[in-house]
Amino acid sequence: MGAWFLAAPTPQAWVDAAAGNWRSLMSDHANCEKKAASTALALMFAYPEDATLSFALARLAREELRHFEQVSRLMEKLDVPFERQAPSRYAAGLRRHAASAEPRRKLDLMLIGALIEARSCERFELLAPRLPPQVGEFYADLARAEARHHELYIEHAKANAGEVDWEQRLRQLAEVEAELATSPDTVLRFHSGVVPGAR
Amino acid sequence: MGAWFLAAPTPQAWVDAAAGNWRSLMSDHANCEKKAASTALALMFAYPEDATLSFALARLAREELRHFEQVSRLMEKLDVPFERQAPSRYAAGLRRHAASAEPRRKLDLMLIGALIEARSCERFELLAPRLPPQVGEFYADLARAEARHHELYIEHAKANAGEVDWEQRLRQLAEVEAELATSPDTVLRFHSGVVPGAR
Repeated sequence: MGAWFLAAPTPQAWVDAAAGNWRSLMSDHANCEKKAASTALALMFAYPEDATLSFALARLAREELRHFEQVSRLMEKLDVPFERQAPSRYAAGLRRHAASAEPRRKLDLMLIGALIEARSCERFELLAPRLPPQVGEFYADLARAEARHHELYIEHAKANAGEVDWEQRLRQLAEVEAELATSPDTVLRFHSGVVPGAR
Repeated sequence: MGAWFLAAPTPQAWVDAAAGNWRSLMSDHANCEKKAASTALALMFAYPEDATLSFALARLAREELRHFEQVSRLMEKLDVPFERQAPSRYAAGLRRHAASAEPRRKLDLMLIGALIEARSCERFELLAPRLPPQVGEFYADLARAEARHHELYIEHAKANAGEVDWEQRLRQLAEVEAELATSPDTVLRFHSGVVPGAR
């Protein structure tokens, strides 16, 4: 379960809490789809010279936007209200570890993209069998899409690694990611750690 | 030619200069498609409670991204090199006139969106017959899409106008837009004014 490069699986306590709060998590999920599209666009603006990357990211962003539309439609159907929620520490916590100088920064951003997509993929898979069929089937579909997305980011990480040992760098960033995704956290979100007492 | 609410047509001098520099303008055009998607996403983040608007903007952003992919592919086919170009004064010059307090700001951003899409539509139409067939036909298709986009923004402006006379506000902003799009400018871009001496 999950991509080969995730350094730790999602704890069962997160899965239990998320399955018990799936309606509230859907607002955060919709937000994550928007953020995934926005991250892809930000990378397109950062590296416009890399036409191959921009093209791939434009397609990826379109897919994330379509997921946003799908989850919005499902929320409406299931009468799940929109909630404005503060994001979890996860994405910002990961990006803080990206190198600030190029070309290392580009490699790091590709690897961080791969890690976020891989964690999303793992969590959709874990949640799918625990949710009402309509939501569960949708999440299983999303898991397959996110799997393609993390492969895409890994592919572009490789293409931009140059002399750098990208697998070693991936292992370092995967440690950071696993800590953020599994250690005690303050708010339950799609990419949060475990919130003590949440159920 | 052009939407009913543009306060002035594009000057012939711009059309002549743009037709003579269409290869160089394509880089800026690709950038405009990215920016249009990014603007739509920014509005989704600004007004997440407005589900109808977010849904419409997600679809619009997807379409702009697909245009970006199409123009990128065409640039590759025609051997048009990518050029990193500073943007023109246009979009920032318009946004400077958006009210800073809500709910006026939301109305203004919808009206500004409509104006930008309407100007794009007008310029694609003007350029289409002046370009090599492959590019001209593509630009004619884009003109039709941008026409739908400016209608969408107008529709959401109306829906968010409340007590405000939105048509009067549109006329005010259209004056600003027309000045930016027609007065002497320093760089030739897809949304620039007229650059003295450019041909």
